[in-house]
Amino acid sequence: MSFKHVALIGLGLIASSISLALRRNKSELRITGFSKSSETRAKASKLKLCEVFDKVEEAVHGADLIILCVPVGAMASVVTAISNFVKPGAIITDVGSVKSEVINQLVTLIPSDAFFVPAHPLAGTEHSGPEAGFESLFDNRWCIITPTENSPRQAVDLVVSFWQSIGAEVEIMTPKHHDLVLAVTSHVPHLIAYTMVGVADDLANVTKSEVINYSAAGFRDFTRIAASDPIMWRDVFLSNKDASLEVLGLFAEELSNLQSAVERGDGTFLYDYFRRTRSIRRSIIDAGQDTGEPSFGRRLS
Amino acid sequence: MSFKHVALIGLGLIASSISLALRRNKSELRITGFSKSSETRAKASKLKLCEVFDKVEEAVHGADLIILCVPVGAMASVVTAISNFVKPGAIITDVGSVKSEVINQLVTLIPSDAFFVPAHPLAGTEHSGPEAGFESLFDNRWCIITPTENSPRQAVDLVVSFWQSIGAEVEIMTPKHHDLVLAVTSHVPHLIAYTMVGVADDLANVTKSEVINYSAAGFRDFTRIAASDPIMWRDVFLSNKDASLEVLGLFAEELSNLQSAVERGDGTFLYDYFRRTRSIRRSIIDAGQDTGEPSFGRRLS
Repeated sequence: MSFKHVALIGLGLIASSISLALRRNKSELRITGFSKSSETRAKASKLKLCEVFDKVEEAVHGADLIILCVPVGAMASVVTAISNFVKPGAIITDVGSVKSEVINQLVTLIPSDAFFVPAHPLAGTEHSGPEAGFESLFDNRWCIITPTENSPRQAVDLVVSFWQSIGAEVEIMTPKHHDLVLAVTSHVPHLIAYTMVGVADDLANVTKSEVINYSAAGFRDFTRIAASDPIMWRDVFLSNKDASLEVLGLFAEELSNLQSAVERGDGTFLYDYFRRTRSIRRSIIDAGQDTGEPSFGRRLS
Repeated sequence: MSFKHVALIGLGLIASSISLALRRNKSELRITGFSKSSETRAKASKLKLCEVFDKVEEAVHGADLIILCVPVGAMASVVTAISNFVKPGAIITDVGSVKSEVINQLVTLIPSDAFFVPAHPLAGTEHSGPEAGFESLFDNRWCIITPTENSPRQAVDLVVSFWQSIGAEVEIMTPKHHDLVLAVTSHVPHLIAYTMVGVADDLANVTKSEVINYSAAGFRDFTRIAASDPIMWRDVFLSNKDASLEVLGLFAEELSNLQSAVERGDGTFLYDYFRRTRSIRRSIIDAGQDTGEPSFGRRLS
């Protein structure tokens, strides 16, 4: 990894974790940063996450890698704001959860003497803000790089090395395929979790304290997913509309099949359906993407 | 807690955890057990979980508390098998996830000189079998007791003390209300998780290894829920049909509202919806039903 100066635009969970992970490497790298929120800038300064600037153009000045760590809906305005201040030859990358539509917006805004290499680290927690970051967030997690037609091979290789240097495994795919894969593994599961939590909150015959007290039986994990940053998730569904709706349509159809099976009391159908999902769980544990430790019963301090 | 001999019928995750939790109390209690599977009996014997018998009537002989730890679909046949061998005055309880329909089946089968006090500990993990049990499973978890019209007050009090003695908090409610509360906090979330995992497994354009590798972004928590015992869950939906369908109907309607919001690109609606679910999460952590530690980013060994 040959960058000497990395600029982080947006100083939330992902940016702060990048900074802490880079520090863990004890490199001589200079790290600068900017957030449009003065409160976030103050927190980041206090945490000594990086050299925090009050103006975005000062934060990117001289940087050879600029990482856009803002919600996808804010990326175009950030690129517009920095475009006159980017060092020639600099690489601009991002961490957005949606690729196709965002790339389409950004390619026309990126300065012609800079290189754009979109990326998406599949890491995060239900917490947000600069104080939520931790140095091991990307360890053993995947980062998907989705080069545009104009991303030079060498720039892609540098971004790959960058993510590997902070613990991530890297995969390369097209923006469109990325968006479909993420609709299945992330976007639609989040929408479903939000919906289930909303339904529980609305239910007239079950009190809120009952929902809260008896959540350990399964609902609890939905609330964890549904506690993620609402701005980030709003932007995901606004910008990954097509793939999300495709997967949501399949989900609604399948749920209706299971609903019918419950209605007609079809135990064989239900048993067969429930059984095959166990093997997928096993594969995820084998792939190192989760531990096999039981979760529902975990001890609470 | 004044029981001298507890019999566990069914020797899976719940029964083995009850046995280990009772042992933690270092009481003089005798614990006997039975499973209809000879393989499970052998495992339970090897683990020294309790005195394991090859015949159910031997396991219940002389017991003053009999706990039915079998899937709800198997309870009626167990009660029929033991009814002539239950000690007069013994209390029969269960750990089933569904109450109304199961109670209706069992009340006619319980010997007239025994007392029936239905119960449901809200504890479990995605693992099953006697080797999955652990002594702290019920610590700080709720056990809901749903007395029938014929459950004597004294018997109810004894079952309450029993669960408290192994770490649980106890709440009393009607069987019908229990079934609605659990449909929201457990049954429908499970059906939804199973459905989402099934959809991902079916998707033609996304490979299984992609689903597995990129599961950390949210889907992973669905697979954990959808890895639970398929027989248990089949029986839940066969026996809690009405409440499950009621909540499923509300869910499908709400999901359709969110789907429309995505379709028309209604960012305000999505943001407002996503924001209110955060407060429910906070309440669950405050109520001690989960930790605030981030989960998606957890370090894997």
